[in-house]
Amino acid sequence: MNRVFITRRETFNAAHKLWQPAWSDQKNQEVFGACSNKNWHGHNFTLFVTVSGEPNSETGFVMNLQRLSTLIRSEVTAHLDHKNLNLDVPFLRDVMASTENVAIAIWNILAPQIRELGAELEKIKLVETENNFVEYYGGNKPF
Amino acid sequence: MNRVFITRRETFNAAHKLWQPAWSDQKNQEVFGACSNKNWHGHNFTLFVTVSGEPNSETGFVMNLQRLSTLIRSEVTAHLDHKNLNLDVPFLRDVMASTENVAIAIWNILAPQIRELGAELEKIKLVETENNFVEYYGGNKPF
Amino acid sequence: MNRVFITRRETFNAAHKLWQPAWSDQKNQEVFGACSNKNWHGHNFTLFVTVSGEPNSETGFVMNLQRLSTLIRSEVTAHLDHKNLNLDVPFLRDVMASTENVAIAIWNILAPQIRELGAELEKIKLVETENNFVEYYGGNKPF
Amino acid sequence: MNRVFITRRETFNAAHKLWQPAWSDQKNQEVFGACSNKNWHGHNFTLFVTVSGEPNSETGFVMNLQRLSTLIRSEVTAHLDHKNLNLDVPFLRDVMASTENVAIAIWNILAPQIRELGAELEKIKLVETENNFVEYYGGNKPF
Amino acid sequence: MNRVFITRRETFNAAHKLWQPAWSDQKNQEVFGACSNKNWHGHNFTLFVTVSGEPNSETGFVMNLQRLSTLIRSEVTAHLDHKNLNLDVPFLRDVMASTENVAIAIWNILAPQIRELGAELEKIKLVETENNFVEYYGGNKPF
Amino acid sequence: MNRVFITRRETFNAAHKLWQPAWSDQKNQEVFGACSNKNWHGHNFTLFVTVSGEPNSETGFVMNLQRLSTLIRSEVTAHLDHKNLNLDVPFLRDVMASTENVAIAIWNILAPQIRELGAELEKIKLVETENNFVEYYGGNKPF
Repeated sequence: MNRVFITRRETFNAAHKLWQPAWSDQKNQEVFGACSNKNWHGHNFTLFVTVSGEPNSETGFVMNLQRLSTLIRSEVTAHLDHKNLNLDVPFLRDVMASTENVAIAIWNILAPQIRELGAELEKIKLVETENNFVEYYGGNKPF
Repeated sequence: MNRVFITRRETFNAAHKLWQPAWSDQKNQEVFGACSNKNWHGHNFTLFVTVSGEPNSETGFVMNLQRLSTLIRSEVTAHLDHKNLNLDVPFLRDVMASTENVAIAIWNILAPQIRELGAELEKIKLVETENNFVEYYGGNKPF
Repeated sequence: MNRVFITRRETFNAAHKLWQPAWSDQKNQEVFGACSNKNWHGHNFTLFVTVSGEPNSETGFVMNLQRLSTLIRSEVTAHLDHKNLNLDVPFLRDVMASTENVAIAIWNILAPQIRELGAELEKIKLVETENNFVEYYGGNKPF
Repeated sequence: MNRVFITRRETFNAAHKLWQPAWSDQKNQEVFGACSNKNWHGHNFTLFVTVSGEPNSETGFVMNLQRLSTLIRSEVTAHLDHKNLNLDVPFLRDVMASTENVAIAIWNILAPQIRELGAELEKIKLVETENNFVEYYGGNKPF
Repeated sequence: MNRVFITRRETFNAAHKLWQPAWSDQKNQEVFGACSNKNWHGHNFTLFVTVSGEPNSETGFVMNLQRLSTLIRSEVTAHLDHKNLNLDVPFLRDVMASTENVAIAIWNILAPQIRELGAELEKIKLVETENNFVEYYGGNKPF
Repeated sequence: MNRVFITRRETFNAAHKLWQPAWSDQKNQEVFGACSNKNWHGHNFTLFVTVSGEPNSETGFVMNLQRLSTLIRSEVTAHLDHKNLNLDVPFLRDVMASTENVAIAIWNILAPQIRELGAELEKIKLVETENNFVEYYGGNKPF
């Protein structure tokens, strides 16, 4: 198989806080620092979704990137954009809203649906700030 | 005077919502759309502060950019970073937390303090997303 | 008037060539070099539209940036995106498709419509490559 | 072997369209949408070429990046820059000019020549827009 | 006159230190901090040169950007790239190598030569780091 | 193990030259070109440190990115920022200051210390210019 990897970028702007409800206020402050601010803070998140497959002989496409964009928007970013990650997102209920956990949740939503479209989800990259980002390959050590 | 302009970039990550308390929920939704989400959303804001002056003959500096950075951080971004612009910021109390108004408030804080340091505040540029930004020149039409 | 400037970024991907029909092939090649390739080349153009006004006391907005985005898309980028600037664009007919001239044409379309929305068009910035961009302020020397 | 990976970035600006000649106009429009515009569109493409090897004990180099740049320019981007990918490029003749296929063609040109220079081609990354890019590792699943 | 502004970006990588020879080592350290390191430090500088004029009716150009690029490279960046700003640059001899002073020196070289080419130099922007940049408009207050 | 990868970006500005002391001046010039300038040149280096691990069930973190940032700054960038890579850096003594070798040296410092913090160093990416970067995975072929 002549495998090629294609990536689509999408964005969402959301509020969150890092807060462990099982802990005291003081411990939350000690562990999470400014990220535990009770009244929230927020980010412009950038999401990169990488899928692989063999280019179709007629289209030259691994898959149609507009189709992939529509899928990511309807299944993922529509639920995250201009939302509060701790309060508003069904698929993050009872999850610590760390960037790591958001990336895992996005993988779990997209992987089966991308497989139905004939491609394979390879990587979720979620950029929180210009200094911090997370990559998830389905739990495997990719390299 | 041989005037030169220097700019310092700083960042802050904050939550906010666009919400006019004098209006009904429905009108807020109509005017502000997703930005009125009750549980907030947020952004990585990027702030550019431009000051002018004549380079000092001994240092070659309009002003020391480390000094400018320290001023911006202590007077401005320390109060905005990892905060809620609607709830947590003394200098935004009773102000609609639009990017326009945040830029004006930052100008009003910094202009007199930069003048005391021997330079002149020329411009506040506040970037909310990769698609939207605001510039303020003290209320004047700069060009 | 407490004037604030807001900018909206939009993008379009287009083909063009620099070709003066009144000239010989050789002169086109001499003046425009690779940009005169008969079979076209293309760019990811980035358009920045800056408008000014006084923030509304109820909304904090100079104007609604979603409204501005909709205007730019319907009046400008819908006619340029995935098009050939020399062949497909009614408002560029009989115009050399240089970045300078495209910026002027965009100004001429948007200026009256933005005035009707209660703001003032201040600047068109059109980025052709990471190394080249054009700015137009309605023909004035802005500074 | 103490393997290190080095990457060189190059750019080219080109026109193309997505068009399957075996199909009707209507089917091309349905599958490729705006990308099938008959009069072409274009992009600023960014190409990243990654090679690996062991740093030379005298130079500290995997290979000389100026040498790599010269190779990419003479063998690849000189044939793509300010060209039409569908019409002007010998190594894309009879190939659907999708970003996937362009990346594969670039790999096939560079891999043997980089091996002759004592390094190994590891990855071609081709960025079409800020939202879409392709990566090719010679057909393998790299991770 | 229907004035349009065009900008060309060029880059150079250079070493420098901030060091006032009339001062003691201690005072240099106090004023310039880490920037006074005796063994130098360095930057990837990015230079933006903005010129204005009226687009030519035949070419659509304010001026040919390739011509402008050649001028900047031969007169400016060839003397700065992979050099030491304090030691290697004739036009910076006896000048404190602050970014402000480098921008002024570049203006003084380019302004008369751009005028000879029929355009007007409007602005030198010199970016030292992602956090710091300088703009010079010939000593005027541009706005 | 449900492995997630997190990356922290840090920056440093440094001078260096590529110079092999065992060679003649002429050979240094032939091999390293402008990079061999005797009086040094410099760069804004950008460093990306990627570590992996399983998110902690209470914090959602692979490891605290502030802790990682503090480690990188104290052990690595404090010794490189505003320094001369050939003269000032204990851990680069007797090493050709190529980007490849700097990346290897950074890996060797950080790998054991990150392991003590309960995570695993996966990758050092060191960006020298917008056109050139190096990646190191501990000497392995990661994919």
